[in-house]
Amino acid sequence: MLAARAESPTPIWSRLVALSAQSIGLSEPNPRVGCLLQSDLQSVQAHGHTQQAGGPHAEVMALRAARDQGLDVRGGTAYVTLEPCSHHGRTPPCCDALIAAGVARVVVATLDPNPLVAGRGVERLRAAGIEVEVLPHDHEVARSVRELNIGFFSRMIRRTPWVRMKMAASLDGTTALPNGASQWITGEAARADGHAWRLRACAVLTGIGTVLEDDPMLDVRAVPATRQPHLVIVDSRLETPLDARLWAAPAGGLSRRILIYHALTEDQARARTPALEARGATLVALPGSGGKVDLAAMLRDLAQREVNELHLEAGHKLNGSFLREGLVDEVLLYQAPLLLGSGAGLSSLGPLEQLDQGIRLRFQSVNQVGDDLRILARVQGRDAFLDSPMNVQTAG
Amino acid sequence: MLAARAESPTPIWSRLVALSAQSIGLSEPNPRVGCLLQSDLQSVQAHGHTQQAGGPHAEVMALRAARDQGLDVRGGTAYVTLEPCSHHGRTPPCCDALIAAGVARVVVATLDPNPLVAGRGVERLRAAGIEVEVLPHDHEVARSVRELNIGFFSRMIRRTPWVRMKMAASLDGTTALPNGASQWITGEAARADGHAWRLRACAVLTGIGTVLEDDPMLDVRAVPATRQPHLVIVDSRLETPLDARLWAAPAGGLSRRILIYHALTEDQARARTPALEARGATLVALPGSGGKVDLAAMLRDLAQREVNELHLEAGHKLNGSFLREGLVDEVLLYQAPLLLGSGAGLSSLGPLEQLDQGIRLRFQSVNQVGDDLRILARVQGRDAFLDSPMNVQTAG
Ligand SMILES: NC(=O)c1ccc[n+]([C@@H]2O[C@H](COP(=O)([O-])OP(=O)(O)OC[C@H]3O[C@@H](n4cnc5c(N)ncnc54)[C@H](OP(=O)(O)O)[C@@H]3O)[C@@H](O)[C@H]2O)c1
Ligand SMILES: NC(=O)c1ccc[n+]([C@@H]2O[C@H](COP(=O)([O-])OP(=O)(O)OC[C@H]3O[C@@H](n4cnc5c(N)ncnc54)[C@H](OP(=O)(O)O)[C@@H]3O)[C@@H](O)[C@H]2O)c1
Repeated sequence: MLAARAESPTPIWSRLVALSAQSIGLSEPNPRVGCLLQSDLQSVQAHGHTQQAGGPHAEVMALRAARDQGLDVRGGTAYVTLEPCSHHGRTPPCCDALIAAGVARVVVATLDPNPLVAGRGVERLRAAGIEVEVLPHDHEVARSVRELNIGFFSRMIRRTPWVRMKMAASLDGTTALPNGASQWITGEAARADGHAWRLRACAVLTGIGTVLEDDPMLDVRAVPATRQPHLVIVDSRLETPLDARLWAAPAGGLSRRILIYHALTEDQARARTPALEARGATLVALPGSGGKVDLAAMLRDLAQREVNELHLEAGHKLNGSFLREGLVDEVLLYQAPLLLGSGAGLSSLGPLEQLDQGIRLRFQSVNQVGDDLRILARVQGRDAFLDSPMNVQTAG
Repeated sequence: MLAARAESPTPIWSRLVALSAQSIGLSEPNPRVGCLLQSDLQSVQAHGHTQQAGGPHAEVMALRAARDQGLDVRGGTAYVTLEPCSHHGRTPPCCDALIAAGVARVVVATLDPNPLVAGRGVERLRAAGIEVEVLPHDHEVARSVRELNIGFFSRMIRRTPWVRMKMAASLDGTTALPNGASQWITGEAARADGHAWRLRACAVLTGIGTVLEDDPMLDVRAVPATRQPHLVIVDSRLETPLDARLWAAPAGGLSRRILIYHALTEDQARARTPALEARGATLVALPGSGGKVDLAAMLRDLAQREVNELHLEAGHKLNGSFLREGLVDEVLLYQAPLLLGSGAGLSSLGPLEQLDQGIRLRFQSVNQVGDDLRILARVQGRDAFLDSPMNVQTAG
């Protein structure tokens, strides 16, 4: 039955992982998944990747492509980067579509990260008589599928988004001059690149300080977008101005949700709530200590609102709070080839007493973007959940 | 006469430039030069690169190698990365050695940068009947020879060393915690790499603040060395302690010169001078404004003392003074994957009023060294002297 396989799995998988990456900025909050169908007797293949939320998943896209190509997938093999879903979500379960299509074999790179459903898709396929193979959890391909979906896996396993702190600074770490001048430190290419990182996130988060000082849009403008991430504002006392630019429609004629987290009592909030809600904002009271928003609770709430990757683009105060509370997973730092000397730094972290109280990172990648550097660095240990074995039985 | 050439010049030049780079850390303050001799009729070659100061230059090394190999270079070609010297320095002129050896042709990548001697070597060879070819000034090879000898060219053309400011910081630009803790922010590999950069410099310079706070040796220890760069201390009031560690013999049983620049009058200095001189230091009074050393005059003085590359390894105050006075050519920054928040920054530059008053750099290279990043960035426009045409007649 495996005799006629036209290609060894390895090139298939690298194509598939690349294919699933085409869902970045598109499928959120759904995972980025790719599916490749191979007929049993021909070397013909059809493939697909997950579309916008509510749209077809990778398996359905691949089955459609097969139909369009006149490819008979009965008795063939389906390669999927993520375990096919077995539940009715926004769309019917993909397992059923594969069963109906008559494939004989399904190869899955990694299981559904949701501990409540992991393995169910595999079970359902097997119950329908399909041969199912799951790559070992530590397989390079399985790892890269999880890496590509780090936010989705974070939300499913840790119940919190993957928090990426975006910063732009001079080479000596200055984000604004003492008089506040900060626009623009990095160049256009870096700003466009930053918009691409906003796009892949489910939400962009900032603090009231940035809203009041910069009056930013914080939408995705500099790269094409077919959806806009939510905008989240940490605004303890509901001070977001009603005439702020962020209320305007974001680029591309798209809409977005605006979530404002505050720390006021219902009584205190009453004067502001109606006007802000009339602007379309969702207000969430999550008072923490010191009259400030409980940031950890906010992250849990955002995960419940299906936020996978959270793009944190705030000033040094809120950055400092996130860092101090151990809530940052990754740092995305643009460094301009510029020395500015004194001014505001990247975060209000510290003062520390010892060097080993610093936050240890590991460089992930360093690239030149225009004239600037883009440094991606991960807080040590924060991605351990990607490797921890999942709570499922998979008699392979 | 050119018929029997065994190799086209291009691979010869790339070999030669690489060969001349073997003089880094060895030939200073002499330039890093390579020479390759090719016999007329055979494909045999001999080569050499410049040795320690007072030792043989590249041409002599290559001639010796030819002799040792029994290679007859009469009628052959000599390729040299830098115009052969025509004057008696620490050694007899290389032109004479080539003439005596009977080569028929000399190909020179770039001319002697010293405006007073540039072209003299070529003239002397031609006068002896040797065919001489000089690569165009903007030839890639000529450019890379000058780049490799940027300090030597700087001293000869600008009459000032090439100033490389070395810094080590966390990713957020902190060099020390508010309580002063600063050792070690970067890892061992970065520190060893830093020593290799010290080694290629003719002098390592620091400020009295660093001497008093860290009591550093500032020698080359972490990599093998056959010479030690001079140590230069900017010490306006001659406060360098007589029991500082820097007076001890540097690593490798080598010796080094210690130069202390101060701003005292002869009268004021009298109490300290004998003890410091007894330690072996050379004291230079160069009073500038505000009771501080005149840094620009110091650089001119260091050039006269044959300092090509100056390795500036000071605290944020002296770094700030160098930057404010426009005396820094290049930044060598080690960034640890670490966030430390508040603390001392890279320099006391500023406060600036506008972003465009910042010091604009251009990234030269970014490398991971151990767990850290090494960023080499050049102050824009500072290396223009490498390209400016030299003041010589070269009817090629
Ligand atoms: N270079 C960059 O990448 C970048 C990016 C964005 C912004 N910026 C700059 O940053 C500057 C603004 O800085 P900023 O620090 O004032 O703005 P911010 O960080 O956006 O907002 C600061 C506010 O966040 C709130 N906050 C801090 N910790 C909190 C916590 N634990 N819980 C709840 N709320 C918390 C505080 O509000 P309450 O006191 O009301 O609680 C604080 O005033 C602007 O000049 C902007 O240009 C730079
Ligand atoms: N991270 C790194 O790469 C690195 C490297 C070296 C040192 N450091 C740290 O830096 C700290 C010391 O900092 P620092 O700023 O006090 O030391 P520093 O820069 O080495 O020396 C400061 C002194 O330099 C003198 N100076 C400054 N501008 C001058 C000018 N225009 N003319 C003449 N003299 C001038 C001043 O002395 P006068 O006031 O007497 O004129 C000043 O006190 C130490 O903790 C050390 O660990 C870090």
